[in-house]
Amino acid sequence: MASVNPPRGMRDFLPADKARRERVLAVIRERYRAHGFDEIETPVMEDYDRLHAGIGGDNEKLSFSILKRGMDAEAIRAAADDPVAALADLGLRYDLTVPLARFYATNRGQLPTVFRSIQIAPVWRAERPQKGRYRQFVQCDIDIIGDASARAEAELMIASLDVLDALGLEGGSIRINDRRVLDAMLDVFGFAPDERPGVLITIDKLDKIGPSGVVAELRDRGATGGAVDAFAAYLDQPTRTPSFDDAGIRAALPAGIPDEVIAHLVALGETVAAARGAGAPLVFDPFLVRGMGYYTGTIFELAHPSVDYSLGGGGRYDGMIGRFLGQQVPAVGFSIGFERLVDLLQDAADTAERAVVLVNDRDVPLAQLLRLKAELVADGARVRIEQRPKNMKALLERSAADGYTSFAAVGTDTTVESLELKPLS
Amino acid sequence: MASVNPPRGMRDFLPADKARRERVLAVIRERYRAHGFDEIETPVMEDYDRLHAGIGGDNEKLSFSILKRGMDAEAIRAAADDPVAALADLGLRYDLTVPLARFYATNRGQLPTVFRSIQIAPVWRAERPQKGRYRQFVQCDIDIIGDASARAEAELMIASLDVLDALGLEGGSIRINDRRVLDAMLDVFGFAPDERPGVLITIDKLDKIGPSGVVAELRDRGATGGAVDAFAAYLDQPTRTPSFDDAGIRAALPAGIPDEVIAHLVALGETVAAARGAGAPLVFDPFLVRGMGYYTGTIFELAHPSVDYSLGGGGRYDGMIGRFLGQQVPAVGFSIGFERLVDLLQDAADTAERAVVLVNDRDVPLAQLLRLKAELVADGARVRIEQRPKNMKALLERSAADGYTSFAAVGTDTTVESLELKPLS
Repeated sequence: MASVNPPRGMRDFLPADKARRERVLAVIRERYRAHGFDEIETPVMEDYDRLHAGIGGDNEKLSFSILKRGMDAEAIRAAADDPVAALADLGLRYDLTVPLARFYATNRGQLPTVFRSIQIAPVWRAERPQKGRYRQFVQCDIDIIGDASARAEAELMIASLDVLDALGLEGGSIRINDRRVLDAMLDVFGFAPDERPGVLITIDKLDKIGPSGVVAELRDRGATGGAVDAFAAYLDQPTRTPSFDDAGIRAALPAGIPDEVIAHLVALGETVAAARGAGAPLVFDPFLVRGMGYYTGTIFELAHPSVDYSLGGGGRYDGMIGRFLGQQVPAVGFSIGFERLVDLLQDAADTAERAVVLVNDRDVPLAQLLRLKAELVADGARVRIEQRPKNMKALLERSAADGYTSFAAVGTDTTVESLELKPLS
Repeated sequence: MASVNPPRGMRDFLPADKARRERVLAVIRERYRAHGFDEIETPVMEDYDRLHAGIGGDNEKLSFSILKRGMDAEAIRAAADDPVAALADLGLRYDLTVPLARFYATNRGQLPTVFRSIQIAPVWRAERPQKGRYRQFVQCDIDIIGDASARAEAELMIASLDVLDALGLEGGSIRINDRRVLDAMLDVFGFAPDERPGVLITIDKLDKIGPSGVVAELRDRGATGGAVDAFAAYLDQPTRTPSFDDAGIRAALPAGIPDEVIAHLVALGETVAAARGAGAPLVFDPFLVRGMGYYTGTIFELAHPSVDYSLGGGGRYDGMIGRFLGQQVPAVGFSIGFERLVDLLQDAADTAERAVVLVNDRDVPLAQLLRLKAELVADGARVRIEQRPKNMKALLERSAADGYTSFAAVGTDTTVESLELKPLS
């Protein structure tokens, strides 16, 4: 007999967990929809070649492949020398961005010029399972395709802050940077173009290994010595959370960053502040890198004072959607950290619901019992029937834990009028 | 460049389709939940061995397998002689029943004694794609595990008829039979035990090939001659839709069917009628077979006068859940035909929604525009921003098609107070 556990690194969701997940999803879906985004869905599989076209970064290596059907022993032996490509023609998606690019190429003619999409769906990655990291998990992405202006970034940020508010997580903020700031900065310090991707990978570790760790790793990499010296001096500066305006952003950067990039950031701050009717919830972080290679402009992460990790992130990736179309299409996306949000909202529950447990004696006729249930359901209640057990206390505790709010005993002469509801817990 | 189509037999869902699907799912989920069912979720994958343990019937052959990771050329060559088992250790589920059985075995200690589950999730089958048949589609199953009484069947039927009502499909009915009726009938006619599974496969084609076709196929099969004669005589009887009571059901059957099976059917009819507060919506069909081999008792299908195909089906399968537990656990399940329902409700739309398109001139400052949008969203509207195009008529038509109900022009001095909303369509 095989193990009865779910596959390695994957989870079953029991009723309480599943209900919480669905409540959080419903809020996310409803808020994004209110902000003008439209939900779409793609199949869980894409062509193997598309999933391995270099867009997915390191995630491509974690991809699950679907075994081709109908291969005989000979075909398998022949495939041994070029294993995966000959054994698999499809794979499970490891993110929602590659499928979105394919979806847009397929369906562009039926979509508005500026297309605001919502995708809420599982993805799969064969990662080494560890706490909080799973091989199947849900991603919630919003993307705006076809708008090169700052409006697109602003709409993503405003909508996502609104989602946090609606989940009871007021006070969210956004850490922001721009890949063009990073490029200009590395140029100013004197890093050669071909060493910059590696330098960015190291800078991305700043939170983890600190300024001295970053400088040491840059020297280990053999990065241009003078550039590392200049960068080290800059890292010694005290300012890390400047005021979010032209002066503040300039003060946090070395001289020589293009004016238009700084103006773009300032405009975003003003727009989000105006829409939110409060001070700008943006925090400039010149060392924010974000891993994916496809970002081309603004990059940002959603933060909340209750946790020290990000609740989502995104950025502009103007080069990628066009790869399946053969033309440039501007795009910006944001992925809210659904699994993290669910964990954070562990204790939220729907207390307004009227949920009744009917505890029936064994001799109550079935037709009477189910008529009673139907009447309560028609009246707006959620109803579970339980036959009276020996251990009534255990039943009531379990019912309360399952979200039921009241119970009533049902005997042979009980009607909906004579039903005595008692509160649970 | 690879094709930009989704994988063969699989579909993209554009915003209007996806919104309709989510509306139908929300109704199904809410109604089943009201009837005391709790939603659960399992990973899309299960162990290869479990998916090929003989429970899935013909669907096992249609299963997609996941290629094992990290196999080198040598391992693949070695696997060639026992192809799939050595190349794949996981597969995608082809139904929700096998995963439910595994889930119950894994989590039984945390579930109520009578467990009423809802599962709403995609399944995958490598079928030859054709109209209305897809390789990825959504199943919506409810199951009751741990209740051997007719209450379980009755709750499934009442809840599912309520779902139809809530979707605007009043007047649904249930075609019902019992595997024990079929067994007893074949015994009465004189079919030998070992030929009965084949005989049932032929009887299942009655709607398609008619009584003479069935009799001919039974003779072709070489079924016991006297039994076929007796069955042919029975098929000649006029009554096919008897009244749903003891007399009616007996009139439709040969003599010799056990009383308790007939009593079980009658009790179900009375219970569903009482709960629905109307005549019994049950129709006895002594020739209803249903394909899966695991059914052991009541079998039934959901029907609606607007269509000549079933909108779902299910039955009792007491032998199966226990296969992963090593003990008998009674179970009954019903799968509502989600994809068929969505097609049937093609034209349903959410007309109550306040959905506004803001058409802005190019010179409207971004902060003003997004402040205006935020105020409308906070006031409960769904809002999409569009920059004023050359072809305003096309924009308004597309917005109406996307479900928007009004629009307003936004200039540099427009405020939420001065906004003039005009109806779309």
